[in-house]
Amino acid sequence: MRDELSEQARYLVHYIENNDKDAFLDSFDELHTFDQAIFYVSLTTQLRRQIIDWLKPVELADIFDEIDPEDVDFNDLLSEMSPHYAAEMLAEMYTDNAVDLMSDLDTKQLAMYLSLMPKDSAEEIKRLLKYEDDTAGSLMSTEFIAINQRLTISQAMVEVKKAAQEAEQINYIYILDDDGVLVGVISLKSLIVWPDAAMISEVMDTNLITVGPADDQEEVAKIMADYNFVAIPVVVKEKMIGMITVDDIVDVIDEEAAEDYSRLAGVDVVNIEDNPIKSAVKRLPWLIGLIFLGMGTASVIDGYNYLVAETSVLAVFISLITGTAGNAGTQSLAVAVRRIALQEKQSTLKSLLFEILIGALIGVLAGVTIFLVILVWKNNLLLGIAVGLAMGVAILVANVAGAFIPLIMDKIGVDPAVASGPFISTLSDLTSVVVYFNVAKIFIDHFMMH
Amino acid sequence: MRDELSEQARYLVHYIENNDKDAFLDSFDELHTFDQAIFYVSLTTQLRRQIIDWLKPVELADIFDEIDPEDVDFNDLLSEMSPHYAAEMLAEMYTDNAVDLMSDLDTKQLAMYLSLMPKDSAEEIKRLLKYEDDTAGSLMSTEFIAINQRLTISQAMVEVKKAAQEAEQINYIYILDDDGVLVGVISLKSLIVWPDAAMISEVMDTNLITVGPADDQEEVAKIMADYNFVAIPVVVKEKMIGMITVDDIVDVIDEEAAEDYSRLAGVDVVNIEDNPIKSAVKRLPWLIGLIFLGMGTASVIDGYNYLVAETSVLAVFISLITGTAGNAGTQSLAVAVRRIALQEKQSTLKSLLFEILIGALIGVLAGVTIFLVILVWKNNLLLGIAVGLAMGVAILVANVAGAFIPLIMDKIGVDPAVASGPFISTLSDLTSVVVYFNVAKIFIDHFMMH
Repeated sequence: MRDELSEQARYLVHYIENNDKDAFLDSFDELHTFDQAIFYVSLTTQLRRQIIDWLKPVELADIFDEIDPEDVDFNDLLSEMSPHYAAEMLAEMYTDNAVDLMSDLDTKQLAMYLSLMPKDSAEEIKRLLKYEDDTAGSLMSTEFIAINQRLTISQAMVEVKKAAQEAEQINYIYILDDDGVLVGVISLKSLIVWPDAAMISEVMDTNLITVGPADDQEEVAKIMADYNFVAIPVVVKEKMIGMITVDDIVDVIDEEAAEDYSRLAGVDVVNIEDNPIKSAVKRLPWLIGLIFLGMGTASVIDGYNYLVAETSVLAVFISLITGTAGNAGTQSLAVAVRRIALQEKQSTLKSLLFEILIGALIGVLAGVTIFLVILVWKNNLLLGIAVGLAMGVAILVANVAGAFIPLIMDKIGVDPAVASGPFISTLSDLTSVVVYFNVAKIFIDHFMMH
Repeated sequence: MRDELSEQARYLVHYIENNDKDAFLDSFDELHTFDQAIFYVSLTTQLRRQIIDWLKPVELADIFDEIDPEDVDFNDLLSEMSPHYAAEMLAEMYTDNAVDLMSDLDTKQLAMYLSLMPKDSAEEIKRLLKYEDDTAGSLMSTEFIAINQRLTISQAMVEVKKAAQEAEQINYIYILDDDGVLVGVISLKSLIVWPDAAMISEVMDTNLITVGPADDQEEVAKIMADYNFVAIPVVVKEKMIGMITVDDIVDVIDEEAAEDYSRLAGVDVVNIEDNPIKSAVKRLPWLIGLIFLGMGTASVIDGYNYLVAETSVLAVFISLITGTAGNAGTQSLAVAVRRIALQEKQSTLKSLLFEILIGALIGVLAGVTIFLVILVWKNNLLLGIAVGLAMGVAILVANVAGAFIPLIMDKIGVDPAVASGPFISTLSDLTSVVVYFNVAKIFIDHFMMH
């Protein structure tokens, strides 16, 4: 499909360059709006200017509704149009998309476009711009169909036909009483199935599930995913102020999941900076913080330095033990974060025992493995036992920490994903070296291991 | 909402225990189907048996359509019903859900239910059971509406009304020619907007985007998310065999994202084992494999053991340097995996230079930090320089590896997420100690650092 697209794209560019408006519009109309958007953003300013010439603001609005904000700089795209054209186009877009777009503009441009737009559109967009990112309010569109409950099915159908062109989706028609209070919903499916004479109030579904504009988008996504809704109404004091459609939720789900699990790497992958310095600045706090946590590990080793001085071979296995324990801890952390995300009903105690058991199993097997390796490599039984024992215990501790810390955080209401992989593994470095050197000390003192 | 639910749940249980069928059905019907499912699976076998008594198979089918397979054992749930009742209920479910459910059954039960259900349903389910997990075929349902292109809008509307009850969704009506070839699609929205006399063939959208039954569910999800589809047709040789609806895709997106990023932790969090031994077995290969990779690091340290023997303080900073470099590498890995998942058009070279720059920046700042720390702590200028320098270079190398390795894998067609965090950090342990000891060696040889 994508190849086919680049094929068509060559023709379209050719038509623009030859200023062949009719040929361009013919084949451009054949494209899906999303593909039109892909094509549009792929062009040079000069070619886009030509298209802007040929399309009405309302036509370009459909294309801008499909542009992914992450891929472009809207300041640039809009500055290619006359301010009046841009303002009219923004007013023609679905409000939720227009608001998304305009929240990226610098204040000067934003103010200009708002001033040039029809008053009512400007007011509406200003109101929606107030909602914080990641809330239901920031996702909702205001193009929904709401009708009075005292209509018949056939009267309702007339209303729906009138409103259909404007609405973002008409799978659900929302039902209001005379005070404009949301009292029910009916799917377009049932609307066409019920007999014409039936009263809306009798056939509508009154078991409403709604969200508030301040609700977290992740919670909204969960509800829509659970109930398989195509749209959900946003309500304030029983009055419907907007509607969130599933296409917006699809992006939220992807982002939230990426956010949760990429935190395992101690970095935010959802808002990737395109400026290296900004990226570095965003990643540094974690690293520097962990360096100071790591200093704890260093000072522990420093404390046992006399052991290293007399038995320098101990130094050989420090990174192996800390590394392996860190890996095991990160695994159990990832599983714990997922369990929490899925809101599994398991008791904290049960999942803790679970990870202790896994940690013990893995610890024993990994310990035996390294014991055998050292036996073969160094031919030193005591060293093998010491390192194997230390690794086994270190893995057990790391597993438990990886599973337990996020659970605790969740219980006390902190986002468990904050307990990132790097944090867990740096923490387990500390416990690992303590275990390692204490075990080693015992062996050196009692068995003169050298 | 959930609290309100548990409130109602208490009443419902009460009604069941008092064998008060009418009261139960009255308040049960008020619940959303998804909430009915939550309630149903939360009950004891005995209580469920009572509900099965009171509901027809077709009614229970709606509830089973909403049960999340991850939360239950369908073998148990079905064995609570008479085989005939269970078979009839399975036949009444939407095929995609019925197939999901039955793919979890043990072969004996599966065969029994298939033999007891209407022949055509059994045939259809058998056909769908053949499709592999994670393919479009395993997600599709066969309850879609397809009509002939030579109908008028009003004739089409009659067809749609007839078919509406059976169909899983009727947002799109699919258009076939006389040979049953899929030639177009029309949304219910346009169907009600166009004048009754218009011909379907004239108003339908012929720019079809379809998928094949063997296509990867992740690819299907991407298309539906990009084009904001509520449903997409599944086609074999131009014939439509099924339809995938957005509610199934929503789950796929969550799973795929969780899968991609949890691999950063070297563990599969999508199919969490509920048996500790199985879990351990699944996690071990990674750990053992990495132990052997870690042995490389150990043997490098072993090679420089004479340095440690004479300057044992070197051992103090091994884990700090390897740990920090590993953390930095994991960060750049996570960003690289995200960039690939988003299919960003950036050139490999550009993103590589990008990470080199970030690595250099972070390396310098982290190096300076540890230098100052050591200066204060150990009051040893040369050691500070050596460790700072080593850490800086190690971080740079780890950053580049974290960004570059997944890009290479993607280029050669391997799933980049396989380059897990543990792998990258274990790899960077190796480079880190090489850098560290070589830097240290230079300082010891030239400046007699002790």
